[in-house]
Amino acid sequence: MNIGVLGAGQLGRMLALAGYPLADRFVFLDPAGKPSAGIGEILVFSGEASDEDVLDDFLSRVDVVTYEFEHLPVDLVQAVERRKPVYPNSHALHVCQNRAEEKALFDRLSIPTPAYRLVSSPVELASAVRELGAPVVAKSITEGYDGKGQAVLHDAEEAAAAWQTIGHERLIVEAFVDFVREVSIIAVRGRDGRVAFYPMAENVHVEGILRYSLAPMPNLEPQVQQTADGYIRALLDELDYVGVLALELFQTRDGRLLANEMAPRVHNSGHWTLDGAVTSQFENHLRAIQGLPLGSTEARQPTCMVNVIGSEGEAAEILAIDDAHLHRYGKSERPGRKLGHVNLLASSHDELLGKVRDCASRLPEAPEPRFSFE
Amino acid sequence: MNIGVLGAGQLGRMLALAGYPLADRFVFLDPAGKPSAGIGEILVFSGEASDEDVLDDFLSRVDVVTYEFEHLPVDLVQAVERRKPVYPNSHALHVCQNRAEEKALFDRLSIPTPAYRLVSSPVELASAVRELGAPVVAKSITEGYDGKGQAVLHDAEEAAAAWQTIGHERLIVEAFVDFVREVSIIAVRGRDGRVAFYPMAENVHVEGILRYSLAPMPNLEPQVQQTADGYIRALLDELDYVGVLALELFQTRDGRLLANEMAPRVHNSGHWTLDGAVTSQFENHLRAIQGLPLGSTEARQPTCMVNVIGSEGEAAEILAIDDAHLHRYGKSERPGRKLGHVNLLASSHDELLGKVRDCASRLPEAPEPRFSFE
Repeated sequence: MNIGVLGAGQLGRMLALAGYPLADRFVFLDPAGKPSAGIGEILVFSGEASDEDVLDDFLSRVDVVTYEFEHLPVDLVQAVERRKPVYPNSHALHVCQNRAEEKALFDRLSIPTPAYRLVSSPVELASAVRELGAPVVAKSITEGYDGKGQAVLHDAEEAAAAWQTIGHERLIVEAFVDFVREVSIIAVRGRDGRVAFYPMAENVHVEGILRYSLAPMPNLEPQVQQTADGYIRALLDELDYVGVLALELFQTRDGRLLANEMAPRVHNSGHWTLDGAVTSQFENHLRAIQGLPLGSTEARQPTCMVNVIGSEGEAAEILAIDDAHLHRYGKSERPGRKLGHVNLLASSHDELLGKVRDCASRLPEAPEPRFSFE
Repeated sequence: MNIGVLGAGQLGRMLALAGYPLADRFVFLDPAGKPSAGIGEILVFSGEASDEDVLDDFLSRVDVVTYEFEHLPVDLVQAVERRKPVYPNSHALHVCQNRAEEKALFDRLSIPTPAYRLVSSPVELASAVRELGAPVVAKSITEGYDGKGQAVLHDAEEAAAAWQTIGHERLIVEAFVDFVREVSIIAVRGRDGRVAFYPMAENVHVEGILRYSLAPMPNLEPQVQQTADGYIRALLDELDYVGVLALELFQTRDGRLLANEMAPRVHNSGHWTLDGAVTSQFENHLRAIQGLPLGSTEARQPTCMVNVIGSEGEAAEILAIDDAHLHRYGKSERPGRKLGHVNLLASSHDELLGKVRDCASRLPEAPEPRFSFE
C-alpha cells in the first residue's frame, strides 16, 4: 500500500522502516520545511495556496494518509480527509490539539485528571491559583510541546507576569499532583474496532523532555494495567480512532492514575516496542490503518528506552552493551534535540537498571536515571 | 557511514533496513539491471568500459563496500578493492565462486565433505560415477545457483549426456550423502577478528530451493554446534574474512557434519534472525564491516523462517497468526521467485511446528513442511 505521512521526522522514518517489510511505500508531506526522515519520498509543503499542486501530487500517490506529529493545521487534515482516508481522523487530532476539549473528553468518559481550571484573564488565573493551591502549572489551551507555552506559579501574585509570559487568550491551570511516577499506556485500534494494549511504561522526564521509558513498568499491578486499558479504550472508541494512541498519566502514592495528556500518534514512550515487544508500535500503527490484523503487544523482556539527546555518543561504546539496540535518526547534533534512542533488554528489572546506568554513562548528555522502584 | 552494496535485491534491501537505525546510508550498484531493493539509491552498471563513470560515481559516494550476491565478476570487486575497503575481501569471493577451490579449502582445513572427484571429460565423469557409486551429482566448477548447471547421474552410462547438458569444461562430481537433515551455520567476523556464531538451523529444500529454516534446530547437541563453530571459524580466519559467512552442511545418521557449500554473504537460512535473534545477521554484517562491536547472536525463541515463493498469499491471513512477522521484498509474482518470508516464533518446537503448518496452509505455493524431528 502507498502510505502518505504528514510530517517527515524520526517518527515517520521509523514508520517507514516498519512498513517496508509489509511492502508499503511511503510519501511524506513535510509542512515544517525541515524533513529529517531520510527515507522514502519527501514533498515539502508550505501550506500556501500556491502550493496546492504539491498537495495534489501527494494525494495522487497515496492510498491512505496518517500523520506523525499533532501540530498540524486541522483544516489541512480535513481537506486531505475529503479526498483520501485519514487515520486517526481529524476530529481526534482536533481534540488532542486543544487542552480544554481534551480535558472535557476525559471528564465525560470519567477518566480522572488532576484538578484544573480554565481561565481567560490574569484575574481568573490568580483565582485559580488560590482555589487549586500553589504551585500550579498554567498552559496555553492550544499548541505547546516539550514544556513550551507553560509557566509554573508558586503564588497568586505571579498571575499577571505569567499571563504575559505565556501570551495566550485562554489557559488551563492544573494543580500539581503528588505523583510517585509518570507512566503511559499505548494502545492501537484497528479499522474493525479491535483494540490491543501495550504493557504500561514508567517514564522519566528531565526538564520536560522524556529521557527514559521502562516497560513493562516495575511493580505493575494487573488492576492498574486494566484501569489504564479501560481509560484508553474509552478514548479510542469515543473518537472512533484508528491507529496508535498514547495516554500519559500520573500514578499517585495510593496507586491511582490521573490522565495528563494524550498524543494521537506513535509516541516516544513506545519506542521500547521496536526491540522489546512482539510487534512494534510502528508496525501496529501501519497494520491498523491498512485494515490488517493487529500484532501481539506482549513484551519479550523488560526493556528500557534511553533517549539520545543533544549529542550522539560513540556507536561502538553503546553497541558494546549486550542486547543494546541503537536507533539513530540521522539528524545533526544540537542541544536538546532528540537524535536517537537506545533500547536495552534484560531478564530482570535489576539487571536492566544496571544496563541503563551503564548506557547513560556512555552518552555525553544523559542525566542520571532515577526510577520509582530504586 | 555510507555503505556501497554490489547487487540490489532483497538481501541489499534488508541490509539497508537494518542499517538506517545505525545512521548508515546506502548506495547500490546493480550489475544485473534488475534492481528490486526499492530503498536507498540505486545505480545501474552494465560492466562495460563505457560505464566507468557509473563506477566512479558509486565509489565517490561510499566509505566501504560489501556485496549481497556472489555471482559478481571478481575483477570488478578487485577494481573496487583498489579504491575502497571491500568486505568480505575479493579472495573470499573468488573461493566461494569456484567449487574446486572451495573443496580444496575444506580439505586443507580438515573440514569433512562428501566424497568428490574433479573431472575434465565425459570419460573421467563416467569413472567418477563408478568410483563414488551412483547416484552422484555433477556440477560445473563455477556458477550455478539454486540447482542450475547440475545433473544427477544414476549410472556411468549417463556421463556423456550429462556432460553435454551441463556444458562446462570442468565439473565436480559428488557422492550422495545419506543425510538425516540439511543444516547451516552462520557466523560473523569483525574487523578485529572476533567471531560470533548463530545457533544452527535445520533447512528444508524442495527442488533445490530453500523453503523452511528452523533455528535453533531441534535436537541440537552442544558438541554438534561446537563442531560447526570450529569449521566456520577456521574458514573465517583462513580467509581473513569480515562480515557474515554461511556454511551449508549435511548431518548424517551418526551425527557427523559434512560441508556442502558456503556463501560469502547474508544468507536465506539466516533470515530467521530478523525476529528470532537478539541481533539480526543483517545488522551484524553491517556492524562487522564498519568495525563496530558484534551483537549477540543468541536466539530469543525457537523460530522458523517460511519462504514465500511464487505467490504472495494474503497479508491479512499471515499476520493473523500470533508472533508471525512478514517480510515482503516488494517484487512482482513469478513462479519460483522468492517474494518474501515469514518468521514464526513459539515457546517450543512442537508449538512452532503447529504454526509452521498453519502458515504453510495460508501460502498458496508452500510445500508441506517436513522436518527431521517430526
